[in-house]
Amino acid sequence: MKVHDLPTPSLLVDVHAFDRNVATMAKRWPELRLRPHVKAFKSTALATRLAEAGHRAFCCATVREVMGMAAAGLGDDLLLANESLDLGRLTSIVENGVARITVAVDSPETIAAAASAHVPEVLIDVNVGLPRGGCAPSDAGRLADQARSRGLTVRGVMGYEGHLMREPGDTKADLVQRSMALLLAAAESVGGEVVSGGGTGTWDTNTWITELQAGSYCLMDTEYTDHAPDFEHALFVNTTVISLTPGKWGVLDAGLKAFGMDHGDPRVLDVGDCWFVSDEHITFGLAEGSTVAVGERVRVIPAHVDPTVSQHERLHLVDDDEVLEVWDVDLRGW
Amino acid sequence: MKVHDLPTPSLLVDVHAFDRNVATMAKRWPELRLRPHVKAFKSTALATRLAEAGHRAFCCATVREVMGMAAAGLGDDLLLANESLDLGRLTSIVENGVARITVAVDSPETIAAAASAHVPEVLIDVNVGLPRGGCAPSDAGRLADQARSRGLTVRGVMGYEGHLMREPGDTKADLVQRSMALLLAAAESVGGEVVSGGGTGTWDTNTWITELQAGSYCLMDTEYTDHAPDFEHALFVNTTVISLTPGKWGVLDAGLKAFGMDHGDPRVLDVGDCWFVSDEHITFGLAEGSTVAVGERVRVIPAHVDPTVSQHERLHLVDDDEVLEVWDVDLRGW
Repeated sequence: MKVHDLPTPSLLVDVHAFDRNVATMAKRWPELRLRPHVKAFKSTALATRLAEAGHRAFCCATVREVMGMAAAGLGDDLLLANESLDLGRLTSIVENGVARITVAVDSPETIAAAASAHVPEVLIDVNVGLPRGGCAPSDAGRLADQARSRGLTVRGVMGYEGHLMREPGDTKADLVQRSMALLLAAAESVGGEVVSGGGTGTWDTNTWITELQAGSYCLMDTEYTDHAPDFEHALFVNTTVISLTPGKWGVLDAGLKAFGMDHGDPRVLDVGDCWFVSDEHITFGLAEGSTVAVGERVRVIPAHVDPTVSQHERLHLVDDDEVLEVWDVDLRGW
Repeated sequence: MKVHDLPTPSLLVDVHAFDRNVATMAKRWPELRLRPHVKAFKSTALATRLAEAGHRAFCCATVREVMGMAAAGLGDDLLLANESLDLGRLTSIVENGVARITVAVDSPETIAAAASAHVPEVLIDVNVGLPRGGCAPSDAGRLADQARSRGLTVRGVMGYEGHLMREPGDTKADLVQRSMALLLAAAESVGGEVVSGGGTGTWDTNTWITELQAGSYCLMDTEYTDHAPDFEHALFVNTTVISLTPGKWGVLDAGLKAFGMDHGDPRVLDVGDCWFVSDEHITFGLAEGSTVAVGERVRVIPAHVDPTVSQHERLHLVDDDEVLEVWDVDLRGW
């Protein structure tokens, strides 16, 4: 199959950029030191490729991601790195030995949910500065005791310094160190082996954790380019020019339903600047001297990888115009 | 089934608000004078309800929407109100008499695509001020002749005054009139019976068209509230509080993958203000005196209906805590 035969919009993954991204990360965080975050790509086929590169422990953000990874035989060590009160769907997976599952907890309620669903292992999720999930560092030890009293095994702690991903390089290291000091102090009071944290934006800054949680690095987007310049754009939305107003603007057949928009407009390659995005369209200003024609294919780079991929049914691994593999985005939904 | 038994995040449609919205619109634009736009809800089950209310002609934005509507027996009169070079998928539907299909064209290339796919009827899409698809009004007659010379039936014109949806009330009517004057002039040179246009934001302003294209009015969102105040919020994302930092913030289990974000953050009802949205979370500031607890359900109103619905697998029609019907969002993708 050729790329130019695919319907549009469709997602393309450049095999060379993808493989280089995987290799760059694996060199710094080999094998189980990396816990790839499937939320970024939601595909067991892509995850299988990472497992083949030695990363057989994964992070998930939703119960469905955990279930899908387990069903695909990728259940060596699955961490639901998120609070959930709806863990009952995991009970049979755990009890049938299909997967090893660990969940993040940060409250008596989430501990109770893990215990009553018979999910046997937990990490204490610690707030390290981002106002989101995670207990106060000073509460971590008490929650660990509470979890143990409910029969749960506490493997350690996790903490996500998401508020520091976009810090400039010269202050990032210092801020990450201070954030991770909170996590290490909590780890001491909690016990266990695991100190899990980080992301693509701190992959080369965070030297305090035992394992890195990162997903965006595989495919990348325009937002992360400045914050993790060692990784390349591997993800493109394949579009068709469906309308032209000569000398002024053109229209592509991909819009709000094909892109995560929270980080702003996607980048229209070569042909011009993105003016605005509608439900099923990008209107772009024609670059001077542009020779783009109706029917032509244009590759567009998303601004945010995770909510872009989750809107598509499949990823196409491509080498120039050749489609090498089709990967279902099979972990969508909840 | 009860709403509190549904997993979260999940989409809820308030049956009373929905029915009132449908009735309000049908009073002004009865039966075939309204051409509901399925892009806003992407569900043949919801479309069936509109057909039962007398609206049996529909607008689609994608080829897949047309195919799904035809397969569901809703093919009396389907307009693909968008340019496409990929119409071959519609040939068998047309040739087997499964549906009456009309497509928008604005160029020699899109006319050729319709002709070679044996799609028999077209509207000339005219630019009426929004820089997107549509030919210059002065080109409309020439394109209509070209379409006829290819054996196509030209039913008339369409033009979308999308740039005026958010104009304040006192200037909107005048601007819409000027925009529609362009469409009416084009209609004269094109011929045919149909002058199709408009949207939820101009439903009570646009008196020049023969049929209104509107979809958002059924479910609504925070963005349209100011521009179409006769319609009510009928769409909510059902979420669970998964984490709390007492006196400060709470976290809901719905994020960028559950909301269209191009019109900004969703509105968190009652419990507080939305601080920010992550892939699978909303962090909200706790309202003073809030008694919200971990595990509690919270209904959130999206900022933009179309790209919110398209991220979900189903809509749940609800009456208070009772789930009356489950509607698949079966027209997603392309």
